[in-house]
Amino acid sequence: MTRSHVVVAVDAMGGDRAPDAVLPGVAAALAADPGLAVALVGPEHVVRPFSESHARTKPVAASEVIAMDEHPAQAVRQKRDSSIVVGCRLLRDGGAHAFFSAGTTGACMAAATLIVGRSAGVSRPAIAAVIPAPARPVVLLDVGANADCKPEHLLQFGHMGAAYARTMLGVAEPTVGLLNIGEEPSKGSALAQTAHGLLAERLPGFAGNVEGRDVPKGTVDVVVTDGFTGNVALKLMEGLSSVLFAEIKGAMTSNPLRAAAAAVLKGSLVVIKRRLDPDAYGGAPLLGVDRPVFIGHGSSGPDAVAAGIAAAARAVRSGLVEAIRDGIAASGLA
Amino acid sequence: MTRSHVVVAVDAMGGDRAPDAVLPGVAAALAADPGLAVALVGPEHVVRPFSESHARTKPVAASEVIAMDEHPAQAVRQKRDSSIVVGCRLLRDGGAHAFFSAGTTGACMAAATLIVGRSAGVSRPAIAAVIPAPARPVVLLDVGANADCKPEHLLQFGHMGAAYARTMLGVAEPTVGLLNIGEEPSKGSALAQTAHGLLAERLPGFAGNVEGRDVPKGTVDVVVTDGFTGNVALKLMEGLSSVLFAEIKGAMTSNPLRAAAAAVLKGSLVVIKRRLDPDAYGGAPLLGVDRPVFIGHGSSGPDAVAAGIAAAARAVRSGLVEAIRDGIAASGLA
Repeated sequence: MTRSHVVVAVDAMGGDRAPDAVLPGVAAALAADPGLAVALVGPEHVVRPFSESHARTKPVAASEVIAMDEHPAQAVRQKRDSSIVVGCRLLRDGGAHAFFSAGTTGACMAAATLIVGRSAGVSRPAIAAVIPAPARPVVLLDVGANADCKPEHLLQFGHMGAAYARTMLGVAEPTVGLLNIGEEPSKGSALAQTAHGLLAERLPGFAGNVEGRDVPKGTVDVVVTDGFTGNVALKLMEGLSSVLFAEIKGAMTSNPLRAAAAAVLKGSLVVIKRRLDPDAYGGAPLLGVDRPVFIGHGSSGPDAVAAGIAAAARAVRSGLVEAIRDGIAASGLA
Repeated sequence: MTRSHVVVAVDAMGGDRAPDAVLPGVAAALAADPGLAVALVGPEHVVRPFSESHARTKPVAASEVIAMDEHPAQAVRQKRDSSIVVGCRLLRDGGAHAFFSAGTTGACMAAATLIVGRSAGVSRPAIAAVIPAPARPVVLLDVGANADCKPEHLLQFGHMGAAYARTMLGVAEPTVGLLNIGEEPSKGSALAQTAHGLLAERLPGFAGNVEGRDVPKGTVDVVVTDGFTGNVALKLMEGLSSVLFAEIKGAMTSNPLRAAAAAVLKGSLVVIKRRLDPDAYGGAPLLGVDRPVFIGHGSSGPDAVAAGIAAAARAVRSGLVEAIRDGIAASGLA
């Protein structure tokens, strides 16, 4: 590990199949990126042997694990030697540049906010999801960190989402839409109506209201909404694609002629399915905390873990957090 | 037209392609159902010739039309001879048993609420959509009538959705889920948390929280949510299915072998696509007004119009409005 490496702290115990699914994911990420180093956080007997057999890996002992069903903030306060808490402390103290965990979202959010802290001017960190629309990837936020939001929060989400699109997706001047139930500024909930005025006045690249159908179609680069609507939207898309592909698969295997035809088409359908698979994007960024933090799905397999670590490293190199700080500062929010 | 006919008042001028798309839809609905009669509402020169050439059709003159971009409540108050207002008056005065229009949703809602009135105990009529999930159709409401809701509104939506599932879909004891961002009662927005307690206490068949993915999967018969979240959800599903089918079509026609294979599979894919087509369900019911009112999509073609008229007639025969009245009364809300 040298000064030039990007160091990602990885929660060895995060996810339903940890550490079994995490360790091969770390190995794959290291193999794919010679500039990457990993600080592997977890119980001695898990992290030490792995580090000894893999280059650019440092073991960081953490004896406790936060389970999926624990109360997030409480668990973070009580389990001071848990992998999530130790990982975030390492991040705060400069022992790592970014943190990745496929552990419980609530605990990661709580630990990152309490230990790493928010960037200046950010009152509510938000979780973003990148939706693979045909025209372009769409950054949707918040997808679950804040169930109830105020208009100012949506303005901050707009700045943070735009910074993500610029640094992580290479969009020079991202357009930002406000998720609403009609195109006219006067439409929608009280929150959406007030937010529309605020965003129109203070958010560069604001493209006005967008509707539900614009998310999968990709008519803007960034879509902002409260964490309730965003979470429903994200899970709806996951559910609908899985239902549709199951139906198509069923139809294709309903008789031998169709099965033969399906075999010909399988390759291209798999490409579509993969493109819609949130795992390929490697975990959701927690935007607004002052270091890059990525949270993987609890069901993450090795590929998803590797993709999440790679995304965290890319966030360090592309200056994601600095871009968020700049955007918030330029807006006068900081 | 005899006493035993079900009379549906139809807005001849509703929709982007009215009356051209409406008239063949009316003809198809009449041909399919010998027990149906239609009161066709619109300009003399449109409704009279059609009525003279079709049995079981009565012309009802209405000289004005409410356009898509007019302010709904204002237009309803000012255009007293518009097809929507005349149709709703006919419904109130007993000249028809139900009303169907593919005109502007806002004006239909305003006219139905102002002229026909709400059923006892209903404070907010809601628009429902029937989602064709694989396991069973799911009644989702509200999908746009009420952008901001209180917990009591969600309770009423639960009763109305259950009454729809019982009478229109033949579900003896419908289960009702509350759309939320987690399964535990403590999850979600302030609205969802309070509504959970209220529904658990006062709604028969309440099955607790459901998440976004449960809507397309069909884990419950009825899903209640506010009109903002419901509208975003509905349009997201429409958008995502249209994007997915376009992608699949593109992949299938990308080379001659795939095109041949696609030809074999086309039939079964069309079945899936049709099942996901909201038009096949013939318009969205406006629940909570005291007569059956169905609102078609503005882009409705003849098939969608016919399906909407058939749904309105079925609502009369199945006692939809009476079931809603009973449900609300039994709950102590009326």
